[in-house]
Amino acid sequence: MTLKLTILGCHSATPRENTNPTSQVLEIRNHHFLIDCGEGTQVQLRKQKISFSKIKHIFISHLHGDHVFGLIGLVSTFRLLGRTSDLYIHGPIGIKELIEVQLKLSESRVDYNLIFNELYHDTSQIVFEDSNVVVKSIPLKHRIYTNGFLFSEKLAERRLNAPAALDLGIDKAYFSKLKQGYDVPNDSGEMVSNTAVTFDPPKPKSYAYCSDTSFLPSIIPIIEQTDCLYHESTFLNQDEQLANKTLHSTAQQAAEIAKRAKVKQLILGHFSSRYKDENNFILEAKPIFSNSFIAESGKVFEW
Amino acid sequence: MTLKLTILGCHSATPRENTNPTSQVLEIRNHHFLIDCGEGTQVQLRKQKISFSKIKHIFISHLHGDHVFGLIGLVSTFRLLGRTSDLYIHGPIGIKELIEVQLKLSESRVDYNLIFNELYHDTSQIVFEDSNVVVKSIPLKHRIYTNGFLFSEKLAERRLNAPAALDLGIDKAYFSKLKQGYDVPNDSGEMVSNTAVTFDPPKPKSYAYCSDTSFLPSIIPIIEQTDCLYHESTFLNQDEQLANKTLHSTAQQAAEIAKRAKVKQLILGHFSSRYKDENNFILEAKPIFSNSFIAESGKVFEW
Repeated sequence: MTLKLTILGCHSATPRENTNPTSQVLEIRNHHFLIDCGEGTQVQLRKQKISFSKIKHIFISHLHGDHVFGLIGLVSTFRLLGRTSDLYIHGPIGIKELIEVQLKLSESRVDYNLIFNELYHDTSQIVFEDSNVVVKSIPLKHRIYTNGFLFSEKLAERRLNAPAALDLGIDKAYFSKLKQGYDVPNDSGEMVSNTAVTFDPPKPKSYAYCSDTSFLPSIIPIIEQTDCLYHESTFLNQDEQLANKTLHSTAQQAAEIAKRAKVKQLILGHFSSRYKDENNFILEAKPIFSNSFIAESGKVFEW
Repeated sequence: MTLKLTILGCHSATPRENTNPTSQVLEIRNHHFLIDCGEGTQVQLRKQKISFSKIKHIFISHLHGDHVFGLIGLVSTFRLLGRTSDLYIHGPIGIKELIEVQLKLSESRVDYNLIFNELYHDTSQIVFEDSNVVVKSIPLKHRIYTNGFLFSEKLAERRLNAPAALDLGIDKAYFSKLKQGYDVPNDSGEMVSNTAVTFDPPKPKSYAYCSDTSFLPSIIPIIEQTDCLYHESTFLNQDEQLANKTLHSTAQQAAEIAKRAKVKQLILGHFSSRYKDENNFILEAKPIFSNSFIAESGKVFEW
């Protein structure tokens, strides 16, 4: 099924009049996953007309302000809006303290269940899983403990060719078995091959979110063949030394990761506001990985 | 001298596309005082083209999110902008922990001196004072410990009528004594009355900021005769019971305080976003206190 990514903000450091810090929403199999939550994220959600009540899981990569300073405001707004459903916050260890101290000091409480899933491993782990989707952490290398996230659809059931199945004398009672991939008997007792009466399910799709990180080839086995990779590119090549020093990446380095991981498309983001023209990020990435795009507040990617 | 108040935000609860939570900047005798700091305040400062480096004192009324969730972002941005000068944060006890926990968890530090002045008294206290200005707390009544602030110019020196003083044979060495209000001798040794060679200084001006609070006549002796009073009016009269329950005020109650305190003008703010037309706040306030105005993001008041 189609995955839809809405960019709410894609700049590093401080919010400005026309730029927003990192946040995005991934729609995947009926989930609306909020990924990172810089200051102003709740206003960006309103601008993009994304219903607050649809957000049940928030994934935070790390505790630098441009990725998390909007979270306490959103948590509080959920309360003001009368939220009753559970809210899961997946993020680095410390995120529970970050939110709970602020709630305590403002003498506030939330009327819904706020469930923290604190991450602390240095290897990729399953962060969330249900029958349709699995989310794994992508250990990144930054100045503070940081994870990216790989969001993957699970393989759906096989699609039934019902007319063919009925023609071959298969009772409807067997249809759920067919969707699960089993061969089943017809009304003469002969076994019918599953592939004769079903179609392959759609190929599962995936999205890898990698921000913030230095150039880190060790993530390649985790994100290999991903349909869409968001990789930070805070700097242009002229500032590669600064990227190395601050444990960020350049557009060329992001493109190199995309190329080696054989992903289908690359989205660049987390731009430093020192650059006036973000098209330069694309100009530097495309010679290495041609299917590169830049993020932009309000931009939607679908695949 | 002229006082200038710039409204950065004047709505209660959550930031929205076209409304901002509470924050304002008061310019008084070369100070740029930031008063409250809801989420998005730093972007509002940029919109109003107020230089970040001019802000040396921040006054926080209470620790509810719509008055303080933008503070950690601003503190962090000051660091990113290379601030070196001291920053004073005056606010309720707990504000130090609020900021320091967030700095600790984001593994951040600031390169400037961050000085907290934590308030905890239930009576009006001097919060800040220099040779030109004094700031006093105004104990308010809300669901959490809250102070308003009274910002007052000090009486300036007397203005010298230099030609008259010279005509009367007063040596220039006495001019500073004259500005201080003393009678001084002329070159014949006769005492000259101060008022003969000086003018009265301009009348000191003041601003009282009162948000958030229920209707609280006990503040009247503190704010009496103030040139300008900002008083919260979260609700219209139809919702007076809700105001009572949540310890907020109605526009009529704010106007009643302004009238009884004999202030010169009243600014209403902290509007609940349940109301579509903020002119209704004025319509309810004016019959009680005619010199009433409504706050609005970007609006400037001078007196």
